[in-house]
Amino acid sequence: MYLGVDLGGTNIAAGLVDDNFNIVYKDSIPTGAQREDKEIIYDMAMLCRSILENTGTQTDDVKWIGIGLPGTPNVKEGKSIYTNNINLRNTPVRDLMQKVIPLPVYIENDANCAALGEAFAGATKEADNSLMITIGTGIGGGIIINKKIYSGFNYAGGELGHIVILLDGEQCTCGRKGCWEAYGSASALIKQTEKAAKENPESLMSKMIETQGKVSGKTAFEAMREGCPAGAAVVEQYIKYFAAGIVNVINIFQPEILVIGGGVSKEGDYLLSPLKKIVEREVYSRDVEQTQIRIAQLGNDAGIIGASVLGLQVD
Amino acid sequence: MYLGVDLGGTNIAAGLVDDNFNIVYKDSIPTGAQREDKEIIYDMAMLCRSILENTGTQTDDVKWIGIGLPGTPNVKEGKSIYTNNINLRNTPVRDLMQKVIPLPVYIENDANCAALGEAFAGATKEADNSLMITIGTGIGGGIIINKKIYSGFNYAGGELGHIVILLDGEQCTCGRKGCWEAYGSASALIKQTEKAAKENPESLMSKMIETQGKVSGKTAFEAMREGCPAGAAVVEQYIKYFAAGIVNVINIFQPEILVIGGGVSKEGDYLLSPLKKIVEREVYSRDVEQTQIRIAQLGNDAGIIGASVLGLQVD
Repeated sequence: MYLGVDLGGTNIAAGLVDDNFNIVYKDSIPTGAQREDKEIIYDMAMLCRSILENTGTQTDDVKWIGIGLPGTPNVKEGKSIYTNNINLRNTPVRDLMQKVIPLPVYIENDANCAALGEAFAGATKEADNSLMITIGTGIGGGIIINKKIYSGFNYAGGELGHIVILLDGEQCTCGRKGCWEAYGSASALIKQTEKAAKENPESLMSKMIETQGKVSGKTAFEAMREGCPAGAAVVEQYIKYFAAGIVNVINIFQPEILVIGGGVSKEGDYLLSPLKKIVEREVYSRDVEQTQIRIAQLGNDAGIIGASVLGLQVD
Repeated sequence: MYLGVDLGGTNIAAGLVDDNFNIVYKDSIPTGAQREDKEIIYDMAMLCRSILENTGTQTDDVKWIGIGLPGTPNVKEGKSIYTNNINLRNTPVRDLMQKVIPLPVYIENDANCAALGEAFAGATKEADNSLMITIGTGIGGGIIINKKIYSGFNYAGGELGHIVILLDGEQCTCGRKGCWEAYGSASALIKQTEKAAKENPESLMSKMIETQGKVSGKTAFEAMREGCPAGAAVVEQYIKYFAAGIVNVINIFQPEILVIGGGVSKEGDYLLSPLKKIVEREVYSRDVEQTQIRIAQLGNDAGIIGASVLGLQVD
C-alpha cells in the first residue's frame, strides 16, 4: 500500500492506494493556503494518519507517502522551494511530515504527479514515453520518459505552458509575453469568450452569459453547440492556439501517447477532433508512426495516484 | 576503436575514434547526394574500409560503425526513412553497409549525433542531461537524457527548430508558419540582414555587402563591430528571436548545460552575452540552479564522434 497526497491551493486530498494503483480510500481537508507552512504540513500529516486509522491500516503496511504540490520542489532534499499560491518557501516538507508519521516521504510537482498517475493507471498506461497537458488556470505539463518523470537537473523542467508561441504577445503570469498558457489555458479561453461576447452583444453566447451570470471555459463550447457563430469562432480560434502548442510538444518529444486533462478536456471530441486535424496537418514527421492524442481518464485522482507511486521512481 | 560517419548533403566524413573518444584519423569524400541510395551507401562503406587500411586497423579491432544522417532514421531497423536533401527513401543503410564491411552498424539523426559527441567529448561532457542547438541552414536540436539520445517512440523527436514562436509568422520549410528555425537559423539571419541592408542603403553594412559581393551569417555581426547601427539592429533583433527559442527549451528541459553549435555560434560572446541576459530575465524558474549556456567545442568532429559512440546507447 502507498499513501498519495495532492496538495492544492484549495484542498489537500489524500488517498490510500493499493499495489494495483487503485485508490481504496480517500479524504480531503481545506488547505488554508495562507497559514504558516508548518501548520499546513502538520494538517497534511494528520490527514494521512486519519486515513490509516479509518482504514485500519498499520504504518508498517504502507511503503511511503508521496506528495504532489504546485511550484518547484527540491525532490532530492524533500523541500518545497517555491509555490505560487500556497505559503511554502524553502519548506522542509519531508522533515515536517516525518515528525508526525514515520514513513519515507517523496515530493514532486503536482502536474508531474498527474502525468505519472495517468501513466501508471490511466490513459497512458501502455506507453513508456508520454506527455500530459493539463488545461486549467494555466497549462500544466508532465513529461514521462521510461515511465519516470523528467524534470531536468534542477527539478524545474516540464514547464510546457511557458513556451512562447506568439513572441511579444499576451502578457503571461510568468513575466514573458506570448506564452502558450496565455492563449491555451482555461483562463485564456474565458478572456477570449468575454471579448467576443462584448464584440457580439446580440449573439446567443452573449445572451447565455447574461442569463447564467458568468463566463466559464464551457461557455463558448455550449454556445457553439447551440448554433451560435460567435461561440463557434471563439472555439475555433482557441483550438488553433491550443493546437500550436500541442504540435510544438509533439515535434519535441514524439511521445507514444499525449494525454489532455483539466476542465476544458471534458469537451471531449469537440476539442479532440479539430485538434487532431491540425496536428495531422502540421506535425513535422509525417512518414512515421504518429503520437496518439487522448483525453485523461483519472480526473483529480491522477494526482493522488501519481504521488503514491513516487517511490518507484527512485533508482 | 570505433568508426564514426557523418553523412552530409555535400560530403561524407568518417573517422576512426579511440576508446577515449578522440578521432585518430579522418577522411572525407563527396556525397553525390542525387545518386541512387545504394551507390552513396557503397561509397560510404568503402570510405570506412579505406580508413581501416590507411591506419593498419583490423576489422576485428573495431567494435562497430555508427552513422549520423539527416532526416528521420528508423534506428531499430537501421533504415533511413526519409532525408530532405539526400536521395535516401526507406534505404536499408545497415544491410547495405554490412554487404561491404562485416561490422555492427548503428544509425541516428545527425543533429542527435552532434549532441552526443559534445556530451561524450566536448562542451557537455560533465552533464548527464544536456541539449545541443545547432544554428545552420535550419535549427537542429539534440536532446541528451542520462547520456543517451532522446528522440521519442518513433525516433522523430528532438525537432527543436520546429517549435512555433510566432504563430502565423514566416513560412517555414516544414510547412508550418512561424517556426523558431524561420527566425533563428543562419538562413533567417541572412534574410534579415539582406532586408535591413536594402532598407538602409547608405549604411556601412550595405556597403560591406556591395564590396564583399555576398551576404553571410557573419555580415551583420561584422558590421556591428565596425560601428554600424543597422548591423547592430539586425543582431539585436536576431538574438531576440534566437533567445525566445532558447528560453522555451530551457523551460521545457532544464538541462544542466545547453550547448550552441553551427556557424553563428562562432560569434562567441557577441552572441552569448546578450543571449544570457535575455535568458536570465525570462526563464521560468529563477529560484533554482540555472542551466549553463556554452558554445560547442568539437565543430564538425562532433558528428563523427557522436556517431562513433552510438553502440554505447544500446541497452
